[in-house]
Amino acid sequence: MPYFSQSVQHIRSSEIRDLMKLATRPDVISFAGGMPNNDLFPVEEVDHIMQNMSADVKKTAFQYGPTAGYPPLIETLKKYLKTKGLPVDTHRLMITTGSLQAINILGMEFIDPGDLVLTENPSFIGGIAVFKAFQAKLKGIPLEADGLDLSVLQQIIKTEHPKMLYIIPNFHNPAGIIYSRQKRKALLDLLRGTNILLLEDDAYNELYYDDTIKEMTQPIMSLNTEGVEMVYTGSFSKILGPGFRLGWLLASPEIFEKAQIIKQGIDACSPNFTQVIANEFVSQGYLSTYLDKIRNAYKKRRNEMDKALKKYMPEEVLWHQPKGGFYYWIKLPQNVDSTAILKDSITNGAVFVTGKTFDPQGKQNNHLRLAFSNMKIEEIVPGVKIISEAIKSHMLAVK
Amino acid sequence: MPYFSQSVQHIRSSEIRDLMKLATRPDVISFAGGMPNNDLFPVEEVDHIMQNMSADVKKTAFQYGPTAGYPPLIETLKKYLKTKGLPVDTHRLMITTGSLQAINILGMEFIDPGDLVLTENPSFIGGIAVFKAFQAKLKGIPLEADGLDLSVLQQIIKTEHPKMLYIIPNFHNPAGIIYSRQKRKALLDLLRGTNILLLEDDAYNELYYDDTIKEMTQPIMSLNTEGVEMVYTGSFSKILGPGFRLGWLLASPEIFEKAQIIKQGIDACSPNFTQVIANEFVSQGYLSTYLDKIRNAYKKRRNEMDKALKKYMPEEVLWHQPKGGFYYWIKLPQNVDSTAILKDSITNGAVFVTGKTFDPQGKQNNHLRLAFSNMKIEEIVPGVKIISEAIKSHMLAVK
Repeated sequence: MPYFSQSVQHIRSSEIRDLMKLATRPDVISFAGGMPNNDLFPVEEVDHIMQNMSADVKKTAFQYGPTAGYPPLIETLKKYLKTKGLPVDTHRLMITTGSLQAINILGMEFIDPGDLVLTENPSFIGGIAVFKAFQAKLKGIPLEADGLDLSVLQQIIKTEHPKMLYIIPNFHNPAGIIYSRQKRKALLDLLRGTNILLLEDDAYNELYYDDTIKEMTQPIMSLNTEGVEMVYTGSFSKILGPGFRLGWLLASPEIFEKAQIIKQGIDACSPNFTQVIANEFVSQGYLSTYLDKIRNAYKKRRNEMDKALKKYMPEEVLWHQPKGGFYYWIKLPQNVDSTAILKDSITNGAVFVTGKTFDPQGKQNNHLRLAFSNMKIEEIVPGVKIISEAIKSHMLAVK
Repeated sequence: MPYFSQSVQHIRSSEIRDLMKLATRPDVISFAGGMPNNDLFPVEEVDHIMQNMSADVKKTAFQYGPTAGYPPLIETLKKYLKTKGLPVDTHRLMITTGSLQAINILGMEFIDPGDLVLTENPSFIGGIAVFKAFQAKLKGIPLEADGLDLSVLQQIIKTEHPKMLYIIPNFHNPAGIIYSRQKRKALLDLLRGTNILLLEDDAYNELYYDDTIKEMTQPIMSLNTEGVEMVYTGSFSKILGPGFRLGWLLASPEIFEKAQIIKQGIDACSPNFTQVIANEFVSQGYLSTYLDKIRNAYKKRRNEMDKALKKYMPEEVLWHQPKGGFYYWIKLPQNVDSTAILKDSITNGAVFVTGKTFDPQGKQNNHLRLAFSNMKIEEIVPGVKIISEAIKSHMLAVK
């Protein structure tokens, strides 16, 4: 069967596309898009970089580059990732066309049709889509406030043979949580010797709101991973701009070699033009200043969300306050369905993404994802009010 | 079996990588890289575009865009492609991350393992790699001076059921030829009603050296394609820069819809940053001036190649003079092997890509590809001399 099959995937993507169209209407308050804020991009910094770029580097930007990435960017990134304790000297780094491409490459490298792939439940829709496209059997493991429910994982490992486990330990999309250090270690202990490939997607690593949280963001791959095969992915989308389409993967030389051949076949190399800029952005020190700025901006929004939710949501509605990232994952009262709330909210001018979108089985629908990253801050209160009202009226209907 | 399989593909890619490493050594004259000339990129034009870009457009450049592409670029490209007679009103246009991605998407959409895919022989190595990755059965149809050998194609259609035919009608890579108008029409006649998808890769469309040739470059998709399902692909790589990683595909709404879902899953969208620049480059009229410049520059190189080949090659060596594009496809005397010539040439300081690299079966090795696009023009004569000497000494050895 070709890669493309007429599946749930199809229906879902068009649902999401319709929602996103709605989300761009100026009269609609959108909590839908999981993307950086339009007004926070480092436009001036990049202008400055471009204006001071040497003619030789500019020419390089226009040309094909090595499949694994623009060599100066790889060196710059290695230094940067080393500060996070990542094993850049024993492993190899590849620049990918967004970190979604990295997940695709690993799918191509590892997944046979029918293979069992484990994800968190909820999980990133892009990851779910990739695994489905490669015809994996998917199983979602419940997320708790501090990470995966390891007892469920342990049970599955005992009785089945998963090929891969895909997780987002920092400022999870959509759940907003961060894994505790203890759980990270316990997860490695559980996987040790099982031959399950651990795929750590760390797209939100830098988006902690407080320095007290920074320590918790240390990647799982920086811990003692002996006996655990794993791949680490990251992205420039949240720390520079998704329009650059740049991500990376860090893997053992064996996994890297095959990944490089696959990448050669799918797009030859990632855009040199944006790689050259990204390299200057990090190596000239713009990144750290910029990160301070966006952490503050997203924290303000989180605080505004926090106030609004506490004030307007009925007490039966539950959530964990995010310590970084873009998302609130809101648990609805029993028997209240996320799609029904969405329909009412749309009528009153607010949109979000329903819970089942993030369930690998496409079923569980008692949550909603509120992305607060790319909306106007003054829209947070009226938006939360609209959704709260919709929930309240459905609670009455249920009673 | 996963997408990635341990195949010829593997060995080939590393061979090519080694060759490319050699090709970047300053003491080696390289006819190997099929890429635009480093010194011809429109660096100043793009600087100018960036400096005059509005703040709003700049912000857009940093953000995610629609999966099908940056809407203003799609509109600009539609106008541009309409001037080539392409059916942009009845078909739909998608921006892809290089045109190699377009071929991948179509592979994902159409190819089941074991499907028969027809290519030209020789053919573009990137296309061959994609079809192999999707486990197609490949058959190469000989190329003549004016296009495919249609009698061979007709025979195959009679006895087998090919899923797809992949061709490069303008300034072929590696063969350098251009299809005659008569052959384009005869090809459509032959395919009509057969259900074979025709994939027209037109990456070199604009690179004709003389206005008298321009008319011949009219895409097959602009002719009467009734009863033939086809997809047209193009690229910014040769008319702006490969570092932008931008290509496109033009297809029926049905093919487009599935392609869009596949693209959503593989990289979400192509780089908005480079799409925004490409749009300004074309819509502000820089493209046509730039094309005049590069056509002249590549023509000069072709003329230099022509003189050198005539002067130094033994008369048993044959070629068609290219009327556009980057390549000479040199036919060696009987019993002289391209790999043997390459080994000798490397010793004496010149590299190229061997003929078998472009054979879907990886066997036929009595040609060599000389790419003259990205070398110093003054290296052409000494480079051709080295290769000619190698050929002459092997001819002696064969006698």
